[in-house]
Amino acid sequence: MENILLFGGGLHANYCIDIINKEGKYNIIGIADSISDIGTELFGYKVLGRQEQLIKLIAKYNIHGGIITIGDNWSRKIVSDSIKTIIPDFKFVNAIHPSTIIGMNVKFGVGIVIMAGCIINPNSIIGDFCFLATGAQLEHDCKMGDFSSISAGSITGGKVTIGKYSAITLGVTIMDRLNIGENTVVGSGSLVTKDLPDNVLAYGNPIKIIRNRKIGEKFLKSN
Amino acid sequence: MENILLFGGGLHANYCIDIINKEGKYNIIGIADSISDIGTELFGYKVLGRQEQLIKLIAKYNIHGGIITIGDNWSRKIVSDSIKTIIPDFKFVNAIHPSTIIGMNVKFGVGIVIMAGCIINPNSIIGDFCFLATGAQLEHDCKMGDFSSISAGSITGGKVTIGKYSAITLGVTIMDRLNIGENTVVGSGSLVTKDLPDNVLAYGNPIKIIRNRKIGEKFLKSN
Amino acid sequence: MENILLFGGGLHANYCIDIINKEGKYNIIGIADSISDIGTELFGYKVLGRQEQLIKLIAKYNIHGGIITIGDNWSRKIVSDSIKTIIPDFKFVNAIHPSTIIGMNVKFGVGIVIMAGCIINPNSIIGDFCFLATGAQLEHDCKMGDFSSISAGSITGGKVTIGKYSAITLGVTIMDRLNIGENTVVGSGSLVTKDLPDNVLAYGNPIKIIRNRKIGEKFLKSN
Repeated sequence: MENILLFGGGLHANYCIDIINKEGKYNIIGIADSISDIGTELFGYKVLGRQEQLIKLIAKYNIHGGIITIGDNWSRKIVSDSIKTIIPDFKFVNAIHPSTIIGMNVKFGVGIVIMAGCIINPNSIIGDFCFLATGAQLEHDCKMGDFSSISAGSITGGKVTIGKYSAITLGVTIMDRLNIGENTVVGSGSLVTKDLPDNVLAYGNPIKIIRNRKIGEKFLKSN
Repeated sequence: MENILLFGGGLHANYCIDIINKEGKYNIIGIADSISDIGTELFGYKVLGRQEQLIKLIAKYNIHGGIITIGDNWSRKIVSDSIKTIIPDFKFVNAIHPSTIIGMNVKFGVGIVIMAGCIINPNSIIGDFCFLATGAQLEHDCKMGDFSSISAGSITGGKVTIGKYSAITLGVTIMDRLNIGENTVVGSGSLVTKDLPDNVLAYGNPIKIIRNRKIGEKFLKSN
Repeated sequence: MENILLFGGGLHANYCIDIINKEGKYNIIGIADSISDIGTELFGYKVLGRQEQLIKLIAKYNIHGGIITIGDNWSRKIVSDSIKTIIPDFKFVNAIHPSTIIGMNVKFGVGIVIMAGCIINPNSIIGDFCFLATGAQLEHDCKMGDFSSISAGSITGGKVTIGKYSAITLGVTIMDRLNIGENTVVGSGSLVTKDLPDNVLAYGNPIKIIRNRKIGEKFLKSN
């Protein structure tokens, strides 16, 4: 098995470790983290260095690729930009829980994390660096833009589009043929009954737009 | 493997093809569709003719049975009536995704489509031509009447009854021991807290009856 | 396979029988029930006696352990107390549906029932005599207190705590890092957006506290 490096040592890494080890395709060699001391052990793996040291780490640990293990969508973008600046063709791998059910003609980008029990129906497209949490479901012909996410137990009807960086949080239902803009956050337990524009926070059953959102604004209580 | 024919060439057929091929029990010989030109290829299969030509198609293509691949409940009834007029004992088969979890003493009718990730608990009964979409869950001792449907992510408590032709749409929760009448539609994201009569549209958390519904009225934006 | 006894012959036993037989770890020798006549057959198994006769039943039927097959949380506590009075070290076994997905470092107590399609994420702890119904999901680092329950289709965010005897009913979403007190009931279809104290009934989207609850008050319409 080829060695991979995790970028990010927060709780999100813990999930990813479980998924990667259950998938059994890659050997986790360690973690690149910007906060924890080098040598610290997190979830059974050592912090090997900073992402700025990537060229050195690749040589030292025979690293084949990696995955960004950070839950915040915009932070994943910042980190991926930074890695691509150092190594433009760095290989980002996917971590897809073996329980995932994948319909025909589904297309995956790179750097994707999919947790246990997710279902992705025929013809759907999952962009680069997307994250699907426990039991998330995409119906047929859906599209997730790069760096977007769907939290646990959220579901869509068919032909739903989710824009780049947008986050569908816990227990959300999105009706058929709707479009969610970019950098938009849908709050927990919402029923999405209409299209949503870019850069808003919206929630409720039925959904209401609550306020505008800035680019890069965090949506999780913590990583 | 015996040859089967799909009746209906809309998007719903796409799901069914994925399920039938994953199940691996039948060979899809082609599609009978009332709109597309004969010979057209849909989702990798040819339109072989119209359902009115069924006797000829059976002989020509050595057809063992078939399945109605139409999402609208009433339309499935119209098509099944029409097929039974031509061939009273036509064999309708089921398409049950291999991931389906089935409890003990569950009974199935014919012509049923069950998508990925559904769970049907002990003693439940699924009538003829029912449709259960992605991740739908029926608790113990539930009963779905013929031609009824449950959309993605919807769940029931125990001892729930859903009447003929009725549609439980996306992300609905139905509490224990409730009865949904015939030809009734429960809108997305609803919490069903009381019995519902025949022929109504109802939605909300908690649910409210919104208006009456005519027999045969469509409930999907499109097939 | 070692023989086990079920305590409780209501509908809840039916589920458990299905799970235990699919798991294939134990042989169900019969049921101890306080109402049905001895010798009555329930769900294919005989009522062998009353729980007060446990010492005699163990000897007669070579019983290795047992499981309390009662849906009401407080009733499970009463029965387990009563059994422990008779045999302090009685062995309570778990019934975990084979479809359950279990993350790394998950810890289980005893006497637990987990139905089909549940997902328990890394580092979560399930206390003694807990019950998780169809498709319930616990995110990472959650904790269920002894005798608590989660009904079908309910989901939590990460780091959620559910107190002893508390019941999360059907189709509930609990946001990240919240604490539910002891002996509290969350009604169906609720979105839990804040901590809840002990001994309350709460529901709604977003959740509201409706009234206080007494210790031992039932929350199900029936067992």
